[in-house]
Amino acid sequence: MTYAVDKLFDAVQAKGHVCVGLDTCADYVPVKEREKAANDSEAVLAFNKALIDATVDVAACYKVQIAYYEEMGIAGLNAYSQTLKYIRSKDGIVITDIKRSDIADTARRYAKAHYCGDFEADFVTLNPYMGMDSIEPWLTEAHARGKGAFVLMRTSNPGMRDFEYLELSGGKRLYNAVGEKLSELARLNKGQKGYGIFGAVVGCTERDEAAEIRKNHPELFFLIPGYGAQGGGAQDAALLLRGVNGGIVNASRSIITAWQKDSGSENADFLFAAQTARRETIKMRDEILAKV
Amino acid sequence: MTYAVDKLFDAVQAKGHVCVGLDTCADYVPVKEREKAANDSEAVLAFNKALIDATVDVAACYKVQIAYYEEMGIAGLNAYSQTLKYIRSKDGIVITDIKRSDIADTARRYAKAHYCGDFEADFVTLNPYMGMDSIEPWLTEAHARGKGAFVLMRTSNPGMRDFEYLELSGGKRLYNAVGEKLSELARLNKGQKGYGIFGAVVGCTERDEAAEIRKNHPELFFLIPGYGAQGGGAQDAALLLRGVNGGIVNASRSIITAWQKDSGSENADFLFAAQTARRETIKMRDEILAKV
Repeated sequence: MTYAVDKLFDAVQAKGHVCVGLDTCADYVPVKEREKAANDSEAVLAFNKALIDATVDVAACYKVQIAYYEEMGIAGLNAYSQTLKYIRSKDGIVITDIKRSDIADTARRYAKAHYCGDFEADFVTLNPYMGMDSIEPWLTEAHARGKGAFVLMRTSNPGMRDFEYLELSGGKRLYNAVGEKLSELARLNKGQKGYGIFGAVVGCTERDEAAEIRKNHPELFFLIPGYGAQGGGAQDAALLLRGVNGGIVNASRSIITAWQKDSGSENADFLFAAQTARRETIKMRDEILAKV
Repeated sequence: MTYAVDKLFDAVQAKGHVCVGLDTCADYVPVKEREKAANDSEAVLAFNKALIDATVDVAACYKVQIAYYEEMGIAGLNAYSQTLKYIRSKDGIVITDIKRSDIADTARRYAKAHYCGDFEADFVTLNPYMGMDSIEPWLTEAHARGKGAFVLMRTSNPGMRDFEYLELSGGKRLYNAVGEKLSELARLNKGQKGYGIFGAVVGCTERDEAAEIRKNHPELFFLIPGYGAQGGGAQDAALLLRGVNGGIVNASRSIITAWQKDSGSENADFLFAAQTARRETIKMRDEILAKV
């Protein structure tokens, strides 16, 4: 079986580490294109297609944050579904950022919802709070369908100190305990490239711990948020990348809204905005490649 | 401002503690009704309406587990949306079990998605792993719209021992640390009945801790899973209810699939199944009322 993590490994080899975040809302769509669209959901979908066309050869994969689409209701989820289908039709790899957490029968239903049908993705994101019986039902479905997941370990927001960072009685932190369980799972469920079919979300905002996290979890492929707007740089991200190929680095607004800062943005169309996104993706890709 | 928690308090006074879980899939629909429906989503929606009609005067509220609807794709989410609207049209109170977790702008978008529009609920469920900055954006929207939330504290699944139950360096458990933060938040954000507008999810499967949890968190209204199928009984649930009115107790399959165990189930129609659900709801309500 070729798993999603194997395809992602190959994509990183070929195209670098950038994961383009399609956290797209109507305000990010160039005004004159938004005015042409029947509604906001259509505008977002059309913009996504332009962004995908312009970056699919220079981005390892896409991460689609479902909240941006849910906000637009049923119509928004149609645009979400069509976006996922479009990425996959271009042989792109898609992570849906859904951070699901539930157990048993409910988790199995979620896995079916997001590993096939209208919302089919290659990877999903999961939240581990409820325990490993909220992760394992996804694993069963992932084996059946060659899919993957990234489980929250240490996120990049300030609030991660509230719980993820709490010290446990043995001296470790909560995120270490989560990481250990994820590494156990990965060692027992590996793809063809040596990485577990389920990886972890580790932010690149805490430089001091990055090297240690990378060393302690050689079998985990990382989804790395926190680049750019949240303060992480190429150097920080590189610490989490194992040599050259052990993770992907997500950026969204810095790529998909870059056109707003360009001269001529008043008259921007999809092509202008998408070419700017391409330029930013290449720039970020090269910044990271220079540090790994 | 009257908050959702105030309305729920009144509903419990009037109708008891039962929260009917509409975790409805097509297999739970009586065969002859399922055959009449255009598709599974329509069958589920029609069954939900019959269940709501038969229980709205004896159930405090409804909890709708979104996974069951997501599994059916866009059509399923239409049935989900229509189910929420139907409950609200009958002056019922609805909790959507979505266990969302994300931060900042993403959390605000989620709050808009689930506090208004196609997916409007009175309460949502949230997962605290990422920290309080994943909860607070919901609070802002809840104040604006009179809404509420239940945040996972100690769930009822065996896997809760993996992380929720871990001992922290000071001797408390992770779920205690979460509970303390939730109590702080509740004390600063109270409704008219003395409860915080955001409550907590606490399972009724660990009897030894129930009395202590209730004592330590007088300002938290509880959503209590684990009744019936997961092993909790009326006695256990009663320990989490503060005197008479401090929480709601969820049951789903034991209510909505009860008709399958009745004689005559081969020929069951919606009325038969819904009346059985009503009977089970009343039975559960009275069992709990006898213990509080």
